Amino acid sequence: MQQALQFYLEQRKKILAQQYAGFLISWDHETQATEQSVIANADQMGVLSAYSYELMTDARFESAVETLYAHKAELEPVLAHEIEVTYKNIQETKKIPADEYVAYSQLMSEAYPIYVRAKRDNDFQLFRPYLEKIVDYVRKQTVWLATDKVQGYDVLLDMYEPNYNQAKYDAFFNLLREKLVPVVKKVTENPAPIPAWANQTWAKSKQVEFCEYLRDVLCFDKSRGIMAESAHPFTTGFGTDDVRITNFYHEDILISSIFSVIHETGHALYEQQGDKALNGTFCSGGASLGMHESQSRFYENLIGRSLEFWQVHFAKLQQIFAPQLDGVTVEEFVAYVNRAERSFVRTEADELTYPLHVMLRYEIEKLLITDELQVKDLPQVWKEKFTEYFGITPPTDVLGVLQDMHWAGGSFGYFPTYALGSAIASQLYYHMNKDFDVAQSLASGNTKQVNDWLASHIHKYGGSMYPDQILRLAIGEDFDAKYYVDYLVNKYSK
Amino acid sequence: MQQALQFYLEQRKKILAQQYAGFLISWDHETQATEQSVIANADQMGVLSAYSYELMTDARFESAVETLYAHKAELEPVLAHEIEVTYKNIQETKKIPADEYVAYSQLMSEAYPIYVRAKRDNDFQLFRPYLEKIVDYVRKQTVWLATDKVQGYDVLLDMYEPNYNQAKYDAFFNLLREKLVPVVKKVTENPAPIPAWANQTWAKSKQVEFCEYLRDVLCFDKSRGIMAESAHPFTTGFGTDDVRITNFYHEDILISSIFSVIHETGHALYEQQGDKALNGTFCSGGASLGMHESQSRFYENLIGRSLEFWQVHFAKLQQIFAPQLDGVTVEEFVAYVNRAERSFVRTEADELTYPLHVMLRYEIEKLLITDELQVKDLPQVWKEKFTEYFGITPPTDVLGVLQDMHWAGGSFGYFPTYALGSAIASQLYYHMNKDFDVAQSLASGNTKQVNDWLASHIHKYGGSMYPDQILRLAIGEDFDAKYYVDYLVNKYSK
Repeated sequence: MQQALQFYLEQRKKILAQQYAGFLISWDHETQATEQSVIANADQMGVLSAYSYELMTDARFESAVETLYAHKAELEPVLAHEIEVTYKNIQETKKIPADEYVAYSQLMSEAYPIYVRAKRDNDFQLFRPYLEKIVDYVRKQTVWLATDKVQGYDVLLDMYEPNYNQAKYDAFFNLLREKLVPVVKKVTENPAPIPAWANQTWAKSKQVEFCEYLRDVLCFDKSRGIMAESAHPFTTGFGTDDVRITNFYHEDILISSIFSVIHETGHALYEQQGDKALNGTFCSGGASLGMHESQSRFYENLIGRSLEFWQVHFAKLQQIFAPQLDGVTVEEFVAYVNRAERSFVRTEADELTYPLHVMLRYEIEKLLITDELQVKDLPQVWKEKFTEYFGITPPTDVLGVLQDMHWAGGSFGYFPTYALGSAIASQLYYHMNKDFDVAQSLASGNTKQVNDWLASHIHKYGGSMYPDQILRLAIGEDFDAKYYVDYLVNKYSK
Repeated sequence: MQQALQFYLEQRKKILAQQYAGFLISWDHETQATEQSVIANADQMGVLSAYSYELMTDARFESAVETLYAHKAELEPVLAHEIEVTYKNIQETKKIPADEYVAYSQLMSEAYPIYVRAKRDNDFQLFRPYLEKIVDYVRKQTVWLATDKVQGYDVLLDMYEPNYNQAKYDAFFNLLREKLVPVVKKVTENPAPIPAWANQTWAKSKQVEFCEYLRDVLCFDKSRGIMAESAHPFTTGFGTDDVRITNFYHEDILISSIFSVIHETGHALYEQQGDKALNGTFCSGGASLGMHESQSRFYENLIGRSLEFWQVHFAKLQQIFAPQLDGVTVEEFVAYVNRAERSFVRTEADELTYPLHVMLRYEIEKLLITDELQVKDLPQVWKEKFTEYFGITPPTDVLGVLQDMHWAGGSFGYFPTYALGSAIASQLYYHMNKDFDVAQSLASGNTKQVNDWLASHIHKYGGSMYPDQILRLAIGEDFDAKYYVDYLVNKYSK
């Protein structure tokens, strides 16, 4: 066993070093490299990923992991968890026929540019044959990876959020449907108009200045991470000491970059505030996608859309953009950032309608994976279901089925984690308020107290446990959607 | 042999993919990552470089290279050259005792931050023990790698510029000393004053705008490379399709970033204009450091300091900085960018005094490597020799022996290539002018004709031949310093 451990630790170092390289290469490609430079070096990416695969599937590594798995009880808890997850990964990888795995990698790299073109040209038919192959593979995946505990769509759900399945998500989404749809209907039938002052041009350099201010306010440790630009904002990182976010600046929308930087800083704090002892293991970073999204949504919605937060920081925004916001009150600004309306695009949706966008995708994925729906019928079914949920019909596929890139990347079972994260955020908020008055703390000018609470209750564990274990440790109970529903119903019934 | 070739090509792919990762990681570290992020991931760098070393010294790879080397005559010329260079690299690596190699890698990573601190605090004694160990290793290197053809300092010179040695450099520098020292003396005794208009603040954003303009003027293909910022400007790249430069903007010096962007674009064009067929081999990029520097210096000095170039582009500079340059004539501007004076720092030196700075380092290196000079005496000897060459004495070690980072990185034998490159540039300029009137071409508004000539005479060969072979092919003669001496004497005697 000592020998197995030694081999495991050596191989882990090699795998992590390749992951580090991959982290920086992806960062480069998504934030600065020219398209032509990226395409020209696609071969290098192939060789690098083949080596990473080779390291992970090395027979000696597998055997070391098996030995350690058999002695799990003797290992320290963090390592035991890591071994369990790694063991599962290896077992799963082995179940996928090698030729299918390779063909799928190839398909992935071909499909993405086609998806981009299809979205640009509003041409679903162009993308359809690729999506059909992807769905075909994903369906097979649910067969290859099925166990006596997890079958069908649950196989995919479990990949993105360990221990979550259709039964749990169905209960969650059914509750949302029951409680939220009437509120959405009521609120969005007479949406608040967009205030006239919001229709101005907002200089990018000033947006950047305010976003940098917000990073400081939220205690993003700038000595351990940078902010750059990309088409879609995202967070990435390696351990606690190199955590990066991106932003995108629309000169015609003041609040887009503001809420992006708050959202991404939520993700970033989760990574920066992890236990440093987890660096150099596979357990650094977050516990799951849902848990990660719970942090970003916490900052974006529960902090960033609160009156108390803006009572402190709206003056700075006014100052930077002076005189463009002269005469606007903080209450008017907060009302604006909390507007709800029926809209077609998930990423631009407000807090209230957002989970319905996710639910739509969840329902469609269930049908697709179980063969009840075929790719060719997707655009039509999307439109029908969207109309049913929202009462409006997307005029194009760009505003419909083509809007998200997830399916083009083979990510089925991913979307539900977005809604789950939002709901976990509300649950954490409830419990945090039992320890101190969050609104009052925000009114004091920074998020240090919030950050510290999240650090000690969630962040410090990184990925060293399953998300449901962390939740129980943090708040003494399991996930419960009622906090989320109560929060939204309460907020939007006012 | 077919088997050897196949193994070689497969292994080359792996080595190149790791080099690609290394290229982007270095780029990230030098242009954007925070210091703390870099330090936190030093371990990953160690693992990555160990893997690259492992690939390069793999016994099967060595055996494949040996087989191919034995059949060199049957290979295509480019591959034959690559095998010859790779064979030499492997043979040399094998001659270095493994424990010494590892200890030296360790020393290198420790020494650099100490050097930075020593330079910051003007404290040579702090750096001295590290430099002593470095020099000790480098001296041993000259013994390990000695052959019947190359010994002593020549071992190091040959590493940076194949087929160049002390005999050649001595002849070169002796000629420079003889012909240039009198001119330097004369010109710098009564240097032209810095014009009053040069003492202004030059907004960084405007400098960036003009540098981007220059990249276009010089036909830098922006679809295959970017420009970023770093403390010291540099060029890096991978193949012809991802070539990157950096710049640094001093708000109190107008021309620093301008001449940096012209210099680095010279390097970049060399890489961008290479034969695309060399991508994916070890022969992409430049033929040697000297040849690379010949290209950057060509653009910086022979184009960038010419009246004809500025006759076209000075108006744009005036426009961007209006009204700061109102009333300045192009002749006054060109006189300013051609000022020569005695100064302490190589990187800030003018075209005339520059080679003397290099000569000083060459003379000192010769003494150090042959044990005639000890590290403890370096600061004093530097001051004495500097006074002898320039007639002024550096007041501090920061302005003396600590100014360059090369020795801290173990690079002895590197400096002479800077002067060699400048000299090759003049030789190329002479021959280019036999084909067309360069000044007249520049007056037409871009450097397309110059670029094309360099592409077809130098760039297209990449690193597929030795630099002296390329020079003979390009201009039908060997390197000759007389063009450089004639050019400088002629220019500065006016």
